[in-house]
Amino acid sequence: MLSKQPVIGIDLGGTKISTALIDSVGRIMARDYRETQAAEGQEAVIERMLDSARRVIAQAEVTQAQVAAVGIGAPGPLDIEAGVLVAPPNLPGWDRVPLKRIIEDALGITTFLENDANAAALGEHRFGAGRGRQHMIYVTVSTGIGGGLILDGKLYHGASGMAGEIGHMTIVPYGPLCGCGNRGCLEALASGTAIARQARERVARGVPTLMADLAAGDPERITAKLVAEAAHQGDAEAREILAEAMNYLGIGMANLVNLFNPELIVIGGGLTNIGELLFGPVRRAIDRRAFRAQAQTVQVVQAKLGKDVGVLGAAAVALAHKP
Amino acid sequence: MLSKQPVIGIDLGGTKISTALIDSVGRIMARDYRETQAAEGQEAVIERMLDSARRVIAQAEVTQAQVAAVGIGAPGPLDIEAGVLVAPPNLPGWDRVPLKRIIEDALGITTFLENDANAAALGEHRFGAGRGRQHMIYVTVSTGIGGGLILDGKLYHGASGMAGEIGHMTIVPYGPLCGCGNRGCLEALASGTAIARQARERVARGVPTLMADLAAGDPERITAKLVAEAAHQGDAEAREILAEAMNYLGIGMANLVNLFNPELIVIGGGLTNIGELLFGPVRRAIDRRAFRAQAQTVQVVQAKLGKDVGVLGAAAVALAHKP
Repeated sequence: MLSKQPVIGIDLGGTKISTALIDSVGRIMARDYRETQAAEGQEAVIERMLDSARRVIAQAEVTQAQVAAVGIGAPGPLDIEAGVLVAPPNLPGWDRVPLKRIIEDALGITTFLENDANAAALGEHRFGAGRGRQHMIYVTVSTGIGGGLILDGKLYHGASGMAGEIGHMTIVPYGPLCGCGNRGCLEALASGTAIARQARERVARGVPTLMADLAAGDPERITAKLVAEAAHQGDAEAREILAEAMNYLGIGMANLVNLFNPELIVIGGGLTNIGELLFGPVRRAIDRRAFRAQAQTVQVVQAKLGKDVGVLGAAAVALAHKP
Repeated sequence: MLSKQPVIGIDLGGTKISTALIDSVGRIMARDYRETQAAEGQEAVIERMLDSARRVIAQAEVTQAQVAAVGIGAPGPLDIEAGVLVAPPNLPGWDRVPLKRIIEDALGITTFLENDANAAALGEHRFGAGRGRQHMIYVTVSTGIGGGLILDGKLYHGASGMAGEIGHMTIVPYGPLCGCGNRGCLEALASGTAIARQARERVARGVPTLMADLAAGDPERITAKLVAEAAHQGDAEAREILAEAMNYLGIGMANLVNLFNPELIVIGGGLTNIGELLFGPVRRAIDRRAFRAQAQTVQVVQAKLGKDVGVLGAAAVALAHKP
């Protein structure tokens, strides 16, 4: 039997569109997955999103009228109030696209839009590692570092929907240049991109390391995953790069602990695959740098939703709003 | 004519107790001021608080029954839920004192306790520079750096009442030692204490500067106020110290802008007397380091309540809770 009022979550990324129809406890009743093919332009991409939504409705054998709401997780910056994608860097050519209204009109289902990091935070809060928590910070560490803030049980947006730019705290005032234009951002020090850049620089300088072998001598082939593999095999250079980066991540997390006094920090994203090489330094930095009372209050755990965090997060956006 | 339901605010500090009876729009109807004389111990201090409260009640010609609530701003750490002062460094010997219950029992008036920085944030939000704002961060810069967070129109406490430790963000990972035990905290870089320490070090090293003359050659006489005076008279060393410290303050504020996306940052405390030497670098750091959308959303202004922020803040604690 169908659970009443399922919702649809659509995770719109620069390379893929992932869609699912989900019941209110987070069971995926149907899913669809396709490439974004962003180069074909905005109308084609939106058509694919609509097809994908219609597909999961048909698959789950429900009617459009039975779907309570659609939630979309999309790359920022967004105008959340208006439901508009402003100018996402990985969807070239999109300029103030009123995605909420377009999807709503086409499907006849109330639609809500949220940036992907906030959607993921909502997903982990409702279905994953943060269930039942009032004060939870979600951090994703992959090519970039993003996050979302659950404060007093709700997603915190700030004055213009832009709160939670965890990756762009300055950690080293005159540190490496960040994609945002600032120097020494957490993202420029501890993201997968930052780790790979560090490793490439060492290999290019001719530092003896297993990373050079694994990359077959081509620094351009070095990724954070390769660094992790070298570290796993005991390479000292790779271990040092990761230790330094994860110490910076820990400093960022300690700052969040002192500022937000959360009960839980949930860390997701590809880099969490390195396990204790990430969580160890983060916990140590919190113990060393945050106030004792706050440090004792907070748990730091790995995200639980894995690759489904996108669609489940988008669905959680719908569930957070539906009447 | 009396306004209905006045409240009493008591600002308990390590050196003074400041009390006022205040109507609901923040008019001070009576006030009392006395020294804490903390060395005489907790019972004597609490008796002085009670005397002080009774004095403002008598002065304003109201009855205890007409007072809606008492708010106390007190030095942290506190257990806010329980209304307990845990072990404030500037009230030696106080160990888990249930101040809320004691005052409530003695006066027969509902009493609420809040740490002094949070109380000041509530005061500026209700009566001062932050009136009507939904997302406001209050920062006080004096001997230390503290703050309070008004999020979605309410004071944010976090999981255990300890949120808002703005002064203890790490800004320089291996910077100067902070009183909290961490290194490179904002407070260790940009507080009055940090500024005075920098100046003392330069004077002790024999660097030629007006600060040495103003201190009559005794580095121990150097305060942040003296540094500001030397800067005002054009001393290059003093100006450099202030510029560097206020740049760090600005980095801290830029971090808050990216994390909280506030509409307003209100900066109070003694150091704001240096005016544009503080606000200039802070605004420039936000423009340079925060995302444009967030930087354009936020205003940075000086606190309005001046020396009354303590009592008005304590009164705002009462008003925030009263039925």
